[in-house]
Amino acid sequence: MIIDVHGHYTTAPGELAAFRDAQLARLENPGAASAALAAISDDQVRESVENNQLRVLSERGGEMMLFSPKASGMEHHVPDPKVAEAWARASNDLVHRVGELFPEHFAPVAQLPQTPAGGLDHVVAEARRTVGELEFVGVNVNPDPSGTWAGLPVTDESWFPLWETLEELDVPAMVHVSTACNPNFHTLGAHYLNADTSVFVQLLQSDLFERFPRLRLVLPHGGGAVPYHWGRYRGLAMRNGWQDPGELLRNVFFDTAVYHQPGIDLLTEVIPATNILFASEMLGAVRGADPATGIGWDDTLRYVERAGLDDDDFAAITEVNARRVYPALDRRLTAQGR
Amino acid sequence: MIIDVHGHYTTAPGELAAFRDAQLARLENPGAASAALAAISDDQVRESVENNQLRVLSERGGEMMLFSPKASGMEHHVPDPKVAEAWARASNDLVHRVGELFPEHFAPVAQLPQTPAGGLDHVVAEARRTVGELEFVGVNVNPDPSGTWAGLPVTDESWFPLWETLEELDVPAMVHVSTACNPNFHTLGAHYLNADTSVFVQLLQSDLFERFPRLRLVLPHGGGAVPYHWGRYRGLAMRNGWQDPGELLRNVFFDTAVYHQPGIDLLTEVIPATNILFASEMLGAVRGADPATGIGWDDTLRYVERAGLDDDDFAAITEVNARRVYPALDRRLTAQGR
Repeated sequence: MIIDVHGHYTTAPGELAAFRDAQLARLENPGAASAALAAISDDQVRESVENNQLRVLSERGGEMMLFSPKASGMEHHVPDPKVAEAWARASNDLVHRVGELFPEHFAPVAQLPQTPAGGLDHVVAEARRTVGELEFVGVNVNPDPSGTWAGLPVTDESWFPLWETLEELDVPAMVHVSTACNPNFHTLGAHYLNADTSVFVQLLQSDLFERFPRLRLVLPHGGGAVPYHWGRYRGLAMRNGWQDPGELLRNVFFDTAVYHQPGIDLLTEVIPATNILFASEMLGAVRGADPATGIGWDDTLRYVERAGLDDDDFAAITEVNARRVYPALDRRLTAQGR
Repeated sequence: MIIDVHGHYTTAPGELAAFRDAQLARLENPGAASAALAAISDDQVRESVENNQLRVLSERGGEMMLFSPKASGMEHHVPDPKVAEAWARASNDLVHRVGELFPEHFAPVAQLPQTPAGGLDHVVAEARRTVGELEFVGVNVNPDPSGTWAGLPVTDESWFPLWETLEELDVPAMVHVSTACNPNFHTLGAHYLNADTSVFVQLLQSDLFERFPRLRLVLPHGGGAVPYHWGRYRGLAMRNGWQDPGELLRNVFFDTAVYHQPGIDLLTEVIPATNILFASEMLGAVRGADPATGIGWDDTLRYVERAGLDDDDFAAITEVNARRVYPALDRRLTAQGR
């Protein structure tokens, strides 16, 4: 079975965006109408994925996708915690419905109502609601809720309540930023990759996983610059007395959202197969196909298939690791006899 | 001839650091003694490199190194333009002396007195002094003088006077940040690579090189995350109507400061040999050797030698490109009969 751990609901019915617009309008003008999500029918939900993520997943030979709200739309920089909470709930309830309507193809992953200064209480509460009550299989955690890197590294103790909760709930976090609020960083081209790189180095310098040994973090977009500079990190670690980057591999995983063959070849050469999770990030940042090869940019299964992996490593990357790192996903699949 | 385009004077005599300390002390306490650089003898300058960069360069088979002041020490975030000017002058005069004492092995590259808000007049003046009067072969430009990304992208018109000057002087700029002033970004592990990535995407979205067709920019550290994500950039460019990343290769070059074989293999596979410049960044971020191979982390010539290049591509990367991109270097070498 091919499991894609990184899909986003970028095609949600327009009612969701209208709700968001109403939320933001009310922040601008408190006299504006109260934001309420209009009714969305099951048919609308079905249509929104059937001809999009589900079609593409199936055409490419994928069977199951971990499905979270649109990442750039999380917009954790909007500072009002109540607004963030309502936005996360609405977004999560909708990916939950996708998972209920297509249980064999989608398993939900939560957006959390992070804010730059709103604390973690409601963040932890939404993690408990989605994972504990609605059986979400993972969460996305934004290491930069401000969108300007105004906060503290994920290794700071202010983050610990969230890491404790994820250990207790036994779900991994994908470390995924949202929209950049700095004109130097293009959101999809620079901010996403920079975040992956920066968080890896934060972890490398810390003892976070001694404190939270069962915490599991997934770095998307192939880990930003990390595998390409693996030697740099090994050398920096030796020189600075940090742990070796290899030690992080007990807790850190890399997805395959890297959109060309040489990138996937490097990823699978440098990072052990035990720590790579198949992912496409579709329908995401990059749509369309490479005119030189005809392969869809984000059809990363083609690259993984051509990376010269033996059968065990291919199975690890496309299924076995995902079931191990996301035990709630494994329970879902097992209950389905898969 | 092996030309290394990226070396830093990280081993300058202590008098230079004492001068900097006195500068900073006076900013804290205007009553403190005026900063003045103590006399440094030629013997001191010789000793500072003979057993360091020069020894390592020679042992590894390198013949010429482009030599600039320590990058993390540029500290453009210190806001006083006069302090920045004096600091750049002192640092540049010292790398100039290295070049005068060892003309066959070192060619100087300038630090510029950038500040977060001090304008470009004195920056342009120092570029003219070093390149025009002292025959420096290039300059380092910090795309984030604030250290917090508080400024504007390098494609903003506020940067144009500097780009105009570099076109006129006919020297390239290495785009190289200094110390990060944000705890999320480790300077050597994250900030350097993030900057390379971010600037590339700034360029990709802009028409800077239509306006400055003879401007040449070198992205250090193998271009951050860029070659690893080349497919992502091709796809983003197509989707967003930007120029293809390949079009940037008329003006943008990548160095080889990537510290393991798989990274160099990817770089040389993805980026045409015409656009790669041999570099070690030594003595820089990463010192010591990989215990698994015995190869020095930053002994990047070993990786380039093993990258399966044909003779023409090897010569392009190690010599020919450097002489073309840095014409003032070529004039120096030609005058030496090399």
